[in-house]
Amino acid sequence: MRNPSEQNYIQQLSIDCVIFGYQEKQLKVLVPKLNFKGDFWALPAGFIYQDEGIDQAARRILEERTGIRDIYLDQFRVFGNTERSNLSFMERLIELNHEILGDKSLNRKEFEWVTRRFVSIGYYALVDINKVIPQKHDIDETIDWYPIRNLPPMIMDHHEIVENALETLRRNLDEKLIAFNLLPETFTMKEVQELYEAIYDKPFARNNFQKKILDLNVLERLEKKFTGAANKAPYLYRFQMS
Amino acid sequence: MRNPSEQNYIQQLSIDCVIFGYQEKQLKVLVPKLNFKGDFWALPAGFIYQDEGIDQAARRILEERTGIRDIYLDQFRVFGNTERSNLSFMERLIELNHEILGDKSLNRKEFEWVTRRFVSIGYYALVDINKVIPQKHDIDETIDWYPIRNLPPMIMDHHEIVENALETLRRNLDEKLIAFNLLPETFTMKEVQELYEAIYDKPFARNNFQKKILDLNVLERLEKKFTGAANKAPYLYRFQMS
Repeated sequence: MRNPSEQNYIQQLSIDCVIFGYQEKQLKVLVPKLNFKGDFWALPAGFIYQDEGIDQAARRILEERTGIRDIYLDQFRVFGNTERSNLSFMERLIELNHEILGDKSLNRKEFEWVTRRFVSIGYYALVDINKVIPQKHDIDETIDWYPIRNLPPMIMDHHEIVENALETLRRNLDEKLIAFNLLPETFTMKEVQELYEAIYDKPFARNNFQKKILDLNVLERLEKKFTGAANKAPYLYRFQMS
Repeated sequence: MRNPSEQNYIQQLSIDCVIFGYQEKQLKVLVPKLNFKGDFWALPAGFIYQDEGIDQAARRILEERTGIRDIYLDQFRVFGNTERSNLSFMERLIELNHEILGDKSLNRKEFEWVTRRFVSIGYYALVDINKVIPQKHDIDETIDWYPIRNLPPMIMDHHEIVENALETLRRNLDEKLIAFNLLPETFTMKEVQELYEAIYDKPFARNNFQKKILDLNVLERLEKKFTGAANKAPYLYRFQMS
């Protein structure tokens, strides 16, 4: 890992990641809690090395947080109003007489560049939640999956960033056929419907939904799922782009 | 106008604008030609002041180029690979023994910050071409509308930026009902169809197209257009979001 010092990064530019997973019929977002007094949650984020493309930086940040490399991700929006600064957040940290884990202590001078105004590029990622082992950074107390309708209070405009990512996900769902990234390799039609219902936060009529999904021509039907009651066993499907 | 010196701007971050207009049944893009020997064309672009939001910066850049303030514009993508640098472009300029109009001369030291790697936020704008009076900057030789299928050779990844803007325009056309920004206040149904055909670069069947557009419920029908041949006069419409 390279030295993440000021000179190595593009200044005043960051990446914020909205990592979506699906579990217990709920759409969830991976959010670390910072290890400072005062209960701060913030989206997984990072900076861009001078010799690194922005997509490459986003992929690195995601891999650091999820342990997996091959993830669906896409840019969705840049957040760049003038109030986007970590200054008040850092000031509050200093006020709260924070401590950082390990042998690092928060040196005002050293962290000054972080407190400037930041323009942030929002990326969203879709993962199979079962494959992810969430990774804490040094400055994190915890990192957990939160239902999108029950997120912890996050710093700055991070709630707006999540809302914006969700809107993009909904808008792209049909066109880009990306929802299947949130499911395990095989799934039933009922599970697809429940996923769509979680994403759109509304119910769909079963027959119409099935027809619509099958008409996409991207699902391969496998053997029936063994449930013990053979006649009611649902088919399993696999996403298969031809 | 403020002093556009290095310190006032966020470093290594720029905005590139794809300004779409519609004329002579063609989708066009506004492109300045730089006033240097060597024939350089580049999208209208600019930097972001430290005390300016990114949307505000895009709006300022667009107003400088079009003379109008109330323009439809939206971000569409960030371009941030590591090769995005003006260095080779600037070097070639220096090689070519360029001259800049007026009393400015290109001082290598002064322009050094401009030659670093830049991450650029792409914005696209839709304008009524008849309302625009294209504005040259000091460093421009000309600024003109070019058909999107007949653009001049532009620097760096500017062709990719235009292609990306066009894809976004197509994707958003139905959902966001933005095409009407390219038309004058009143128009015939035939003109709407020709506009859509220019944007998608393919013909539409007249009846289906009419039905689809009218079903959007966003057009107010006005009196017939006077053509001299009353029985063949088409209706005029106006965009009217309820």
